[in-house]
Amino acid sequence: MAAAAPRRAADAWAGLAQTNPALAIVDALLRGTGQVMFQNNPLTGLLFLAGIFVNSAKLGGLGVLGLAASTLTAYLLGADRTLVRNGLFGFNGILVGIGLAFFLQYNGLLVVYVIVGAALSTVVMMALANFFSPWDMPALTAPFVLAAWLLLFAVLQFANVRPSSLIAPALPDPHAVPPTQLREMATGGGAVGLTAGNLAHAFFRGIGEVMFQDKLATGVIFLVAILVNSRISALFAALGSALGGLTALTVGANGVSIYHGLFGFNAVLCGIALGGLFFVLTWRSAIYALVAAIVSALVFAGIVVLLSPIGMPALTAPFVLVTWLFLLPKAGFRALVPVALADVSTAENAVSSYRTREGGPAAAEPGDAS
Amino acid sequence: MAAAAPRRAADAWAGLAQTNPALAIVDALLRGTGQVMFQNNPLTGLLFLAGIFVNSAKLGGLGVLGLAASTLTAYLLGADRTLVRNGLFGFNGILVGIGLAFFLQYNGLLVVYVIVGAALSTVVMMALANFFSPWDMPALTAPFVLAAWLLLFAVLQFANVRPSSLIAPALPDPHAVPPTQLREMATGGGAVGLTAGNLAHAFFRGIGEVMFQDKLATGVIFLVAILVNSRISALFAALGSALGGLTALTVGANGVSIYHGLFGFNAVLCGIALGGLFFVLTWRSAIYALVAAIVSALVFAGIVVLLSPIGMPALTAPFVLVTWLFLLPKAGFRALVPVALADVSTAENAVSSYRTREGGPAAAEPGDAS
Amino acid sequence: MAAAAPRRAADAWAGLAQTNPALAIVDALLRGTGQVMFQNNPLTGLLFLAGIFVNSAKLGGLGVLGLAASTLTAYLLGADRTLVRNGLFGFNGILVGIGLAFFLQYNGLLVVYVIVGAALSTVVMMALANFFSPWDMPALTAPFVLAAWLLLFAVLQFANVRPSSLIAPALPDPHAVPPTQLREMATGGGAVGLTAGNLAHAFFRGIGEVMFQDKLATGVIFLVAILVNSRISALFAALGSALGGLTALTVGANGVSIYHGLFGFNAVLCGIALGGLFFVLTWRSAIYALVAAIVSALVFAGIVVLLSPIGMPALTAPFVLVTWLFLLPKAGFRALVPVALADVSTAENAVSSYRTREGGPAAAEPGDAS
Repeated sequence: MAAAAPRRAADAWAGLAQTNPALAIVDALLRGTGQVMFQNNPLTGLLFLAGIFVNSAKLGGLGVLGLAASTLTAYLLGADRTLVRNGLFGFNGILVGIGLAFFLQYNGLLVVYVIVGAALSTVVMMALANFFSPWDMPALTAPFVLAAWLLLFAVLQFANVRPSSLIAPALPDPHAVPPTQLREMATGGGAVGLTAGNLAHAFFRGIGEVMFQDKLATGVIFLVAILVNSRISALFAALGSALGGLTALTVGANGVSIYHGLFGFNAVLCGIALGGLFFVLTWRSAIYALVAAIVSALVFAGIVVLLSPIGMPALTAPFVLVTWLFLLPKAGFRALVPVALADVSTAENAVSSYRTREGGPAAAEPGDAS
Repeated sequence: MAAAAPRRAADAWAGLAQTNPALAIVDALLRGTGQVMFQNNPLTGLLFLAGIFVNSAKLGGLGVLGLAASTLTAYLLGADRTLVRNGLFGFNGILVGIGLAFFLQYNGLLVVYVIVGAALSTVVMMALANFFSPWDMPALTAPFVLAAWLLLFAVLQFANVRPSSLIAPALPDPHAVPPTQLREMATGGGAVGLTAGNLAHAFFRGIGEVMFQDKLATGVIFLVAILVNSRISALFAALGSALGGLTALTVGANGVSIYHGLFGFNAVLCGIALGGLFFVLTWRSAIYALVAAIVSALVFAGIVVLLSPIGMPALTAPFVLVTWLFLLPKAGFRALVPVALADVSTAENAVSSYRTREGGPAAAEPGDAS
Repeated sequence: MAAAAPRRAADAWAGLAQTNPALAIVDALLRGTGQVMFQNNPLTGLLFLAGIFVNSAKLGGLGVLGLAASTLTAYLLGADRTLVRNGLFGFNGILVGIGLAFFLQYNGLLVVYVIVGAALSTVVMMALANFFSPWDMPALTAPFVLAAWLLLFAVLQFANVRPSSLIAPALPDPHAVPPTQLREMATGGGAVGLTAGNLAHAFFRGIGEVMFQDKLATGVIFLVAILVNSRISALFAALGSALGGLTALTVGANGVSIYHGLFGFNAVLCGIALGGLFFVLTWRSAIYALVAAIVSALVFAGIVVLLSPIGMPALTAPFVLVTWLFLLPKAGFRALVPVALADVSTAENAVSSYRTREGGPAAAEPGDAS
């Protein structure tokens, strides 16, 4: 549970946001930012934004544009106001904005492109929410992945919106063995190999890369931002990043990619989602979440290979795919206790609701719950 | 609403088709042709066929073969007779026939291949109809896209069914900037650039390309054919083709592709489907439909890039994907009023039913309807 | 129906398995092996294992590891005990084990990789079971395909798990015409062309390749193993393999691939699944199943082309895709009588239940049943 001081500030802010329409909009946008990592908390969102702007004003600016465009689209189309206020139409928009800014060259048309992509993410969000309602399943960041993929793929056909040098189509070479030593991409700089510094970079950049922020300091700020809202989510974010990187080291992935956190960010999201949020936290669901984090690091490599002939990025597709697969079994695995979508708030609340329901902390084994 | 004379002729024909089994079959096949653009009208279908045969007897002939094969398959498997009579098992079949004829070299085995593909489209149609029933969603031309894709991909492994020169696998080149000037593909011929003639070609070929008809006159006939059944559908077909082309010009797509209508045909279908057919026509749903048309032009480029390593065509997959995404939100967006699948006939009928239901032309705002 | 002697032995075994926990585990694992071809029979599973070990101890050993790992995962996660005992969490695991062993180089890490893949297949199995429950549809071998694909794709990024020489990414060449003469891959050996011997190899290897067993004798053993449980399934397995190969010969596929049964194994599975198991066997459903087998051979080529830029195998994806498409129409085609998933046992039982329900062997036409 969050410490008392931030909680009081949060309550005060919530009161202001209910009475002042301008603050209500700011609140919805900040919650939308926090929801990128499932944290429905405006302070978390504010710290996320700080972490992004510390790294890049360009990514931050186009991210905020996407955030505003997707939220406004939801409002204009008459989406449920409570969902809009909780930021559920914002988190895909900010990711679309940052993602397109990250992989495309900046020009005036890119601004329009971000607005179209963010609006599209809102339509996809509502489409998936309706599609998944029979199973009570979340859309996660699939609206971002789908909207950004389609718009990114397209630019290889366009003269007026151009890819950055990160887009490099090539057939995978089965004989090429990746260099596994941890090191920074920039030539000449930094130590090489399993140093404490390099591991720290891999760990914190893994958290930063959830929002394309390839910077240690941003990862630190992001982790603090999560901690403000939920200790359990912060713990599983950290465990996810660590396990994603360790999995990549074990299978011998490219050390430069590991250093820059690319094997961490999907594992971070899997860790948070499955570590107490969509399943009640128990020893068994904790192990389940960590296995999902490990699998997401492997699936990341798989999707990178799948997209390599067109040179496109995996984005958070590994997280979406793995979390859907690990979440869809729901009550089919009696070792796990799913949380109804309408009840999802924090991992801490899920545990205390479950204990109350089951009659105190000495709750029955999850296996008996159904 | 249709003019009086065609309507009287249509009523007379409908009477004949009910009493004469041979005419009933012709009627079902013509409606199947009309349904390619959602027009359940035998005269529209007849004009579509005229437009196709004006351009190519080969495409027309194999199209009619596919139409007959898919409709017969539905009949033999015992599909709902009303659906069969309304042409709902024909439109994917005619598209499979024309599509395979367009991308493959003609020989005796191609005829068998078309029959297998058309029969497969009927199975996929029923599969998707059943799959989508919990959401009351239409299969659109997905059965055509899926059946044609699988059979087209396969020929690169076969000696006896061969691709035409349109199939050219290549890795996309991120450094290549497409030539954006509007012009015809054939070297030497025609003006270059934004001339009225070139824009007319882009506009009408965009309508013709819905059925792979790369000819201005065919586009004109198709537009008249839609107009015979629904002024609103004709308007949105025209707006779709125009917006698809304009979007492509804005982002700087290949001018040859734009000239030949390749950025138009998916936007035409999105325009018709979302412009009054599956959502009641209002100012808000009109804008929504036009945004979908714009998005479909971008998604077309995205799917072309995705398939470029195997050199395969996007077909109407951009239309299917975008329309599914824009339709799935249904009542989740209160600004839009969805039409139940069983009630879909023409955009005009949807408006008048809605007005009747809501108590006259001075109907309440859609936003208040739910 | 099975002959009397094996049936008595089966009943005796079932009795032992119910009382002895160790035998219960063996029974579940053997049924899991049999379920690869829908045969819930421990003797069939035992013969399948014999057929595999006759060909390769390495494939057999890693297959059994996958079988045990996926079954244990289901047990630990609290999956329905009856499903676990019937082998429904084993068949994807054994396929993951054999498949990874087939396409990857052996080392210590591969053993861990197989365990992770097999455990993942159990999660995907439960995910798909829950996803498909509104339509009462089976997951088939999709958990194997998805888990194995993701882990296979990934290794092109890893230094410590390496692909075998079977993984060879390349753009498809539309001008290349495959050599169509039947012959063995190994240079120099064996007759070339349509000899009885080559056709026998294509036929039996087509059955063996369901479990990656490229050996005539293994195919013979597999066919006997199916026959032990169901004559109808054995018949449709044989018809599937024959039709898959004949389809490939007709369209002019690569003769080496045909010889090694690669156009047969998906058709074998389509034949068994649709030939009396998920639809009651009638003349119409028999033809329907055989058309599906033919289509699966074409779809196999299509998926091979789709994956050729990353050099990855189609696995049983053609079977899964075609069977889902042909099964999803369910009662929408009145010519077919679907079997509820909970009632699926053998094709023979489905026919006799249907006859009992409809009032004796002189049952009404299926078309009238609804």
